[in-house]
Amino acid sequence: MTSTRVGIIGTGIMGTDHAQILQRFVSGAELVLVADVDLDRAERVASQLVCRATSDPLGLIDDADVDAILVASHDSTHAEFVLAAIRAGKPVLCEKPLAPSLAEAVELISAIGDKAALVSVGFMRRFDPGYAALKAQIHDGSIGRPLRIHSVGRGVSTRPGWTDELSVTSSAIHDLDIVPWLLESPVVEVTWLAGRSAADDFHDPQLILLRTSDGSLSTVDIFLNARYGYDMRCEVVGDAGTASIVEPVRVVTDTELTRLTGYAADWRPRFAEAYRLEQQAWVDRINGVPDGAALATAHDGLVASAVADAVIASMHTGGVATPVAVPEV
Amino acid sequence: MTSTRVGIIGTGIMGTDHAQILQRFVSGAELVLVADVDLDRAERVASQLVCRATSDPLGLIDDADVDAILVASHDSTHAEFVLAAIRAGKPVLCEKPLAPSLAEAVELISAIGDKAALVSVGFMRRFDPGYAALKAQIHDGSIGRPLRIHSVGRGVSTRPGWTDELSVTSSAIHDLDIVPWLLESPVVEVTWLAGRSAADDFHDPQLILLRTSDGSLSTVDIFLNARYGYDMRCEVVGDAGTASIVEPVRVVTDTELTRLTGYAADWRPRFAEAYRLEQQAWVDRINGVPDGAALATAHDGLVASAVADAVIASMHTGGVATPVAVPEV
Amino acid sequence: MTSTRVGIIGTGIMGTDHAQILQRFVSGAELVLVADVDLDRAERVASQLVCRATSDPLGLIDDADVDAILVASHDSTHAEFVLAAIRAGKPVLCEKPLAPSLAEAVELISAIGDKAALVSVGFMRRFDPGYAALKAQIHDGSIGRPLRIHSVGRGVSTRPGWTDELSVTSSAIHDLDIVPWLLESPVVEVTWLAGRSAADDFHDPQLILLRTSDGSLSTVDIFLNARYGYDMRCEVVGDAGTASIVEPVRVVTDTELTRLTGYAADWRPRFAEAYRLEQQAWVDRINGVPDGAALATAHDGLVASAVADAVIASMHTGGVATPVAVPEV
Amino acid sequence: MTSTRVGIIGTGIMGTDHAQILQRFVSGAELVLVADVDLDRAERVASQLVCRATSDPLGLIDDADVDAILVASHDSTHAEFVLAAIRAGKPVLCEKPLAPSLAEAVELISAIGDKAALVSVGFMRRFDPGYAALKAQIHDGSIGRPLRIHSVGRGVSTRPGWTDELSVTSSAIHDLDIVPWLLESPVVEVTWLAGRSAADDFHDPQLILLRTSDGSLSTVDIFLNARYGYDMRCEVVGDAGTASIVEPVRVVTDTELTRLTGYAADWRPRFAEAYRLEQQAWVDRINGVPDGAALATAHDGLVASAVADAVIASMHTGGVATPVAVPEV
Repeated sequence: MTSTRVGIIGTGIMGTDHAQILQRFVSGAELVLVADVDLDRAERVASQLVCRATSDPLGLIDDADVDAILVASHDSTHAEFVLAAIRAGKPVLCEKPLAPSLAEAVELISAIGDKAALVSVGFMRRFDPGYAALKAQIHDGSIGRPLRIHSVGRGVSTRPGWTDELSVTSSAIHDLDIVPWLLESPVVEVTWLAGRSAADDFHDPQLILLRTSDGSLSTVDIFLNARYGYDMRCEVVGDAGTASIVEPVRVVTDTELTRLTGYAADWRPRFAEAYRLEQQAWVDRINGVPDGAALATAHDGLVASAVADAVIASMHTGGVATPVAVPEV
Repeated sequence: MTSTRVGIIGTGIMGTDHAQILQRFVSGAELVLVADVDLDRAERVASQLVCRATSDPLGLIDDADVDAILVASHDSTHAEFVLAAIRAGKPVLCEKPLAPSLAEAVELISAIGDKAALVSVGFMRRFDPGYAALKAQIHDGSIGRPLRIHSVGRGVSTRPGWTDELSVTSSAIHDLDIVPWLLESPVVEVTWLAGRSAADDFHDPQLILLRTSDGSLSTVDIFLNARYGYDMRCEVVGDAGTASIVEPVRVVTDTELTRLTGYAADWRPRFAEAYRLEQQAWVDRINGVPDGAALATAHDGLVASAVADAVIASMHTGGVATPVAVPEV
Repeated sequence: MTSTRVGIIGTGIMGTDHAQILQRFVSGAELVLVADVDLDRAERVASQLVCRATSDPLGLIDDADVDAILVASHDSTHAEFVLAAIRAGKPVLCEKPLAPSLAEAVELISAIGDKAALVSVGFMRRFDPGYAALKAQIHDGSIGRPLRIHSVGRGVSTRPGWTDELSVTSSAIHDLDIVPWLLESPVVEVTWLAGRSAADDFHDPQLILLRTSDGSLSTVDIFLNARYGYDMRCEVVGDAGTASIVEPVRVVTDTELTRLTGYAADWRPRFAEAYRLEQQAWVDRINGVPDGAALATAHDGLVASAVADAVIASMHTGGVATPVAVPEV
Repeated sequence: MTSTRVGIIGTGIMGTDHAQILQRFVSGAELVLVADVDLDRAERVASQLVCRATSDPLGLIDDADVDAILVASHDSTHAEFVLAAIRAGKPVLCEKPLAPSLAEAVELISAIGDKAALVSVGFMRRFDPGYAALKAQIHDGSIGRPLRIHSVGRGVSTRPGWTDELSVTSSAIHDLDIVPWLLESPVVEVTWLAGRSAADDFHDPQLILLRTSDGSLSTVDIFLNARYGYDMRCEVVGDAGTASIVEPVRVVTDTELTRLTGYAADWRPRFAEAYRLEQQAWVDRINGVPDGAALATAHDGLVASAVADAVIASMHTGGVATPVAVPEV
């Protein structure tokens, strides 16, 4: 049986979560090495998951026992590690974004050239059973022709130093990928808006309007200090009906004059299934197992970054903005 | 026991519904006379509800046995009948709008002068238990400071000859009233937008952005050929949580591999309770029974019309518009 | 317009609730007099609702200004007041039960003789929109032939001195009426069971099995110290699907990592609509307004008492019991 | 990395589903061989999942490349294959039941002797996130002391030749395992009941009453021709609240005057997650990976069979029955 030996760069919250999922729940893969600038942190993860640890990410990439690399380190380091992995000829799954700015992402893709197929980008929502079911329902025609999507992304709180731009590049970017993916139509125009804010020093919630080339006008409501829970909503409005995702609750409790279900405090329980299926699809592809799932490509990552750039342009100018065309890869 | 004798002008769908609610379910009132340009139609309603019928609306207003008037005739006739009722010194509950245009509404209010307190306007959503509970929840602080409202209004289909403007003045006007009523903050800026349409000859769905003086940025999504059902949604997003109305379903059915609840085909079952409570509040006020409920005043009607006018201005200019100030009444 | 002048006996929680509903929300009726052994309590209600008060219930019944009587006093007094009302030739709506025991109820009905049509019994669930919709759905065939009902009745807490028998005669009696009413088939066999209890001195929850003459085997789960809320559930299982009532919530709130809806603390908000519609149907009948609704008759009250008696017999013997046949009235 | 090489006996619906899950989604395992009396059927599965096929189940058990065996063949063959696997010294996960009758199951366990720890039984509901969350909630005290469970199991239709006894041994057996597992208290008394039936030749639905040694009285409602869908419900009633599992839906659709979610047509989508987690726990144990999950043991299988036997005894006698004590293993 083919088993892909994976190295993971970054053992923060995101990388640790990836490591646990990969080691415990992915068929045909084996976690062999983790790297972090904080070696202690890497060693704790390695000890728990029974693999090796290093503080040298480039060493991890070149390690003879590592067949494929998952990049979950700080956003600013993604481009460097992706490029190194490609140069080592190894498949790489990179958490979004590929690079801190669109320009750097474009530069990275140029440098990669015809090896771009080795790169996958972590738009895991495409693997979430809810979003996948929405897409299937658009396809099967049960809600007619899609006209509009309302996409809502809410989190409990942001870390200190957060900015309007980070809300776009770190959070809304998932919506900027998923809306055109659902509609199968690229974003051609964006508008950024905000009003009364829950935060003192940046705008929260934001409202982003998206026009796609099919003419649909969609909304993205991002609110990262919503306090009440980590809550992703998405409604596709068609001309024969609507379809909406439901938070995947398993138990309802009656107590103290209320009927209640729980919200996750962050993305990990909400998207555990999506991350598992995304990793499985990535590993399956490496192992040559045919599958129908849609890993986001380097080009998908570029496109989403171009839309995010346009949103930030609209934020700064106050007007409508158009995403730039990105090179085919 | 005081019993107010009510005359209803208009026995179309709306007027007939009002007549049945009043005669069957309102305490302290009695339906004595109905008027319609189509006398046959009026007589059918009169026969069913055991009252008199006429084809003369002005005669109804002046009828000695009529204490109060409910106007549910064609929009274009509202102003005339309201004015006549006021001149007869009788309280009048007028279905929205007071007049076809803001200018005519302002003219009407000027003509009424200091008798405006006799006029109530049919913004029945304020009496819907769902919207009322939302307002109570904003007040009790359980979701913190309100930051944004998402108000959604959907219907099954429009009648022939529908226009973009009618979507605003006949349907969205309820949202244009309820959003500032919930926030207790007037609308200061509006933007009208639309994208891909389900209709050939007008824009459906529409998207209206509302800024209120508290700084909140809210959305109104109006889709009147949504086919799937009559569906009103409203979410208030606060800085400590959110609250949303729930369609008032009573039964869930499991059959044929689905779990389902029903949607109303039009507003009547959805807002039956709201219409009943609105009429009761109106009758109670006439009968001198103290109540805490908030009938919409002539001024509320003017304000909503001014916002609707601004939405139509934005529709025509493509830009942001500001509602004009309306006279105090 | 005909207006029935109503006197209400009993101004405890139940009677006060009835008085408010009647005075504020029922068309064609007027509350003129309330009676209570505690005159102060009666006067407080009278003052709030603008009617007269007395401490003499028999005087209320014979009062020349009282056309009809609603009995909401202590269970032990129902039979006496119903009999007095009938002797005065006045319609009476009596809260369940008609009498403390089946024998006394049978005796009452015998004494009433051919005037039984003047008596209605307060099985208000028949007017609840949820149960009414269940019944409609059984009729329209959408869930096929009914095979089983699961009826659940839960309350927050019982008052001191509660007993197993009171759970049956004061609470389960509603289920013992509603199950055969839904199935249109009388109860022919009952079994009482209990297990681990939340209470020290009586059994709570109870489990009652009902066989109806159509062969269906249904369950009634009564739990009156359930603490979490006042919660009525009912599922009808048919051979083509199931239908279940839904608690009539209007708002859902997201806060503190939970999504929640509220439960009522007692029956008043839960059945406000049912009580209103029941009173309206009673008043309509008195006023000669035709209606299709099903007020429970004296015979219905007898039948339910006979079933309750059988449940208590099963409780005491530990075996299956059969309700006695009650006289036609 | 350790990888357990698994052979699966039986490639019917259940075995094929197991094979796909194991090969596609389980970490640390590899499907190497499938066996079926119908070699064509086995070869189709082998071809799809890239492994070998055989028509010789005993050969599979003894195959040098097979480390562990999953038995998903006809119920009547389970005991023989389990015994053979144990004699080969290989871990075996056997679909329930261990044997067609309690007597045969006891005999099997005796023959196995001190090797029983190699046997796991397929009570996968213990791994379903819903039931697992219920158990967690009982433990954390949020609903107080558990008093009663309502467990409901419904399927779309039974195959020809079905019997009352099969409803117990093939379907209710899951409830007979899960109720005491949740309560952590063994079943001490059972009663079988039935009423009006959807089937001509056997009783459907059934009602089973369970008393556990903690004094709780629970109900199991089994209805296998419910037509509307595959639907598992479970409510734990505690003295401070209740907790209920929710069908794991991901999308809600609005169309044609209804709001709907889908039911599965059989157990596969409903319990896909449970089967995956069960297989993963089994493989983890074999591979020496520590885990906290609770695979059902041979003893658990015996206990459930003893309860099922008692239910069938009650079915035949019409009275209360007590499960026999089973040997410790």
